Amino acid sequence: MALRDVKPDLRNEEGTVAVLGILKQTFGERFQTGQSFREQHAHTTTYLPPQLPDGVVFVESSDDVKAVVSACAEHRVPIIPFGVGSSLEGQVNAPSGGISMDFTRMNKVLRISPEDLDVTVEPGITREELNRELRATGLFFPIDPGANASIGGMTATRASGTNAVRYGTMKDNVLSLTVVTASGEEVRTASRARKSSAGYDLTRLFVGSEGTLGAITSITLRLQGIPEKIGGGVCAFPTVEAACNAVIMTIQMGIPVARIELLDDMQIRACNAYSNLSYAEKPTLFLEFHGTEETVALQSQQFAEIAADCGGDEFRYTADAEERAKLWNARHNAYWAGRALAPELDGLSTDVCVPISRLAQCVVETQADIAREGLLAPIVGHAGDGNFHVLVMFDGKDPASVSKVEAFTERLSRRALAMDGTCTGEHGIGQGKMAFLEEELGGSVDLMRAIKRSFDPGNIFNPSKIFRMT
Amino acid sequence: MALRDVKPDLRNEEGTVAVLGILKQTFGERFQTGQSFREQHAHTTTYLPPQLPDGVVFVESSDDVKAVVSACAEHRVPIIPFGVGSSLEGQVNAPSGGISMDFTRMNKVLRISPEDLDVTVEPGITREELNRELRATGLFFPIDPGANASIGGMTATRASGTNAVRYGTMKDNVLSLTVVTASGEEVRTASRARKSSAGYDLTRLFVGSEGTLGAITSITLRLQGIPEKIGGGVCAFPTVEAACNAVIMTIQMGIPVARIELLDDMQIRACNAYSNLSYAEKPTLFLEFHGTEETVALQSQQFAEIAADCGGDEFRYTADAEERAKLWNARHNAYWAGRALAPELDGLSTDVCVPISRLAQCVVETQADIAREGLLAPIVGHAGDGNFHVLVMFDGKDPASVSKVEAFTERLSRRALAMDGTCTGEHGIGQGKMAFLEEELGGSVDLMRAIKRSFDPGNIFNPSKIFRMT
Repeated sequence: MALRDVKPDLRNEEGTVAVLGILKQTFGERFQTGQSFREQHAHTTTYLPPQLPDGVVFVESSDDVKAVVSACAEHRVPIIPFGVGSSLEGQVNAPSGGISMDFTRMNKVLRISPEDLDVTVEPGITREELNRELRATGLFFPIDPGANASIGGMTATRASGTNAVRYGTMKDNVLSLTVVTASGEEVRTASRARKSSAGYDLTRLFVGSEGTLGAITSITLRLQGIPEKIGGGVCAFPTVEAACNAVIMTIQMGIPVARIELLDDMQIRACNAYSNLSYAEKPTLFLEFHGTEETVALQSQQFAEIAADCGGDEFRYTADAEERAKLWNARHNAYWAGRALAPELDGLSTDVCVPISRLAQCVVETQADIAREGLLAPIVGHAGDGNFHVLVMFDGKDPASVSKVEAFTERLSRRALAMDGTCTGEHGIGQGKMAFLEEELGGSVDLMRAIKRSFDPGNIFNPSKIFRMT
Repeated sequence: MALRDVKPDLRNEEGTVAVLGILKQTFGERFQTGQSFREQHAHTTTYLPPQLPDGVVFVESSDDVKAVVSACAEHRVPIIPFGVGSSLEGQVNAPSGGISMDFTRMNKVLRISPEDLDVTVEPGITREELNRELRATGLFFPIDPGANASIGGMTATRASGTNAVRYGTMKDNVLSLTVVTASGEEVRTASRARKSSAGYDLTRLFVGSEGTLGAITSITLRLQGIPEKIGGGVCAFPTVEAACNAVIMTIQMGIPVARIELLDDMQIRACNAYSNLSYAEKPTLFLEFHGTEETVALQSQQFAEIAADCGGDEFRYTADAEERAKLWNARHNAYWAGRALAPELDGLSTDVCVPISRLAQCVVETQADIAREGLLAPIVGHAGDGNFHVLVMFDGKDPASVSKVEAFTERLSRRALAMDGTCTGEHGIGQGKMAFLEEELGGSVDLMRAIKRSFDPGNIFNPSKIFRMT
């Protein structure tokens, strides 16, 4: 299999030997070089082939992180920060070897201020763990990328997910970070104030930098009050255009939907089979509304009118918690439902995001492409943001199948770029989308390289991700 | 007068002569070196003494910008981007001389997509001009810093203002930029997609960089639908603590206020006198709600209950457009009302922002400081963000008065920092707050310097602002 640009890079053998010795001595059992540890930290949900690190260190504190960074910086050995490994574009691969820095044990809530609606956590905590810890406060952290990702990983990938349409992405919800940089120093990017004009926005620079600029050691997040009332529902449409038009009108009217998700007919078929449901096999929107009794009722009624205007079927609303859970479990399992359409095949989950006015056209052209190529590829999208995913099934052992899926995702990315969209709304560039980043942003990528060079002159932090330095 | 660190830096006399010649030849009448032009471009609303550029160039296109940058880069002469000059911390001063790049004539709307709720503009357009151009679309651009600032200046300063509590700051409302960098190349920082994980967030890096990293040549902004219904009102409180508690409860309950502004008793007195009003001379909140008939009614009722619980007077609500205009005119004129308290004195408008739970304490301690020092200094704040301004009157010709106001603003900034706040919520660092930036962010400022060095190795873009390079 030769998917994309994932050939191994030059390794620093001598430096690696030195670092392995130092880390063994410093961390003892918390440093592992066995094959199974190394495989666990390269085998992720990505479609890209694994590239193993030389060792895995389980850090427990900022001081641990500093010690690893100092050793790796001195000997010019790569560091690959690792959360839970749910990234999709090869972000945790180790193409030049090096040390996987596992944050699983740095998973504490460091402080909560319910009165300020914020919290500071270590990067290894997952979003589900965080929300469990928050429950007693009446607050929650809204970003939900589907996977039970770590907050550190979500920060590094600028993650978002189903309710970004209401609550924004990680860039909108991180107030401040502490980061250990290549010099081994820990810096703080911002105060805990809600807004600031104090200097360059380093917080937003580290958010989405995919571990290439430093190791995040703590994250201060904005929180939201748990809504008094949550309602939701399902609405099927005769065509994808009709469903997209309902989304566009909903956004334009300023209805503050919490979730508005598009599933195409193939995805509905997969969900019906996987989650034992019986939705009509038509393009469908899943919605959720957050607010008070009155506002949720008002919003769902407004949406029902829009859906009717767009030729949709009846909007099936529910405020019943169990029914809602069933609905959103089905949505969250969309990936696995898709994979179950062809369990013998590999799956590539890709994502693009376009201005919302182009969403219908982009989805329709992509469906036509899928049909033309005879691909098995359900579509599911965070339609309110103009963001959608295609899960393309392929046979990783068959070069023809690999070429076909590569060509398809290239066309998809270029289609999004031609509509003034982006090659990735939330999965990041990693190893898989470097070529498209260059096409999308041209000369800006040289500015990114300049930042990388100035922050990390030895190129130790997650090298050969996002862009190549040479 | 010797306020802060504004001593002139070393000038490049030889390079300046060369650039003056080139620009005269290239731009003819669009390049001016007369005293009055130079004074106009250094004399701003800042309290800092003016430092004149050597010439002013009126650019009309990206090609003009590139030509100026190329000439200045070759001869290492500073470029100071200029919008309308409403910045408050000396951002448009020219401590090393150089060329003021006036964007007034680059004020076109380049494109509008009502269906995507976005617009692309040139940097010289002011926010009021933009909103006039948008009127027919039913959309508006919400950020309102008070002054009729240029969108370019607002972007560069990461401006916000009265309704940031609802709509965010410039960082939340800029989708993409084009920027001419020190190499003379124009780059684009992002596509027009609502969200993206494609590489480093260069958009947010340029937002708030105060002209130090490049010259912004176009800005793509998110827009909002003009609310169906706008309501607002006024509520007086016995103490500042009581008013702040009402703000905290409003935010915690998730009531989506569009504006929630705090005016202390001295500010109310000033507004009464200046705008011919008769509000009770007590700490007062001005509020605005955006939504539908139903949601605005609901929100204002919820707020009225909170205000009563906090010991406030009756909440005087109005949906009458004329009355609302009177209210917000008074608020917008707060600066001039304050200045009118002592027309013979100079005025220093400073700003800090703290976590909202600390707002009452920070304001109360600051009022005590004002009383202790016998200063004339009304307070007005974007309370929902924890952000407030103090307009300190002083006599710029009296060194003792200058020292006193300097010492006061130092204590104020340090008070905010001690509460994990920031020394500036929205005015920026400019020349006036460099020392506090170092105190606030420590080692992070070295990362900012590293970025500056890598983007602008000749240090031509607005040098000696935000931080010093040496």
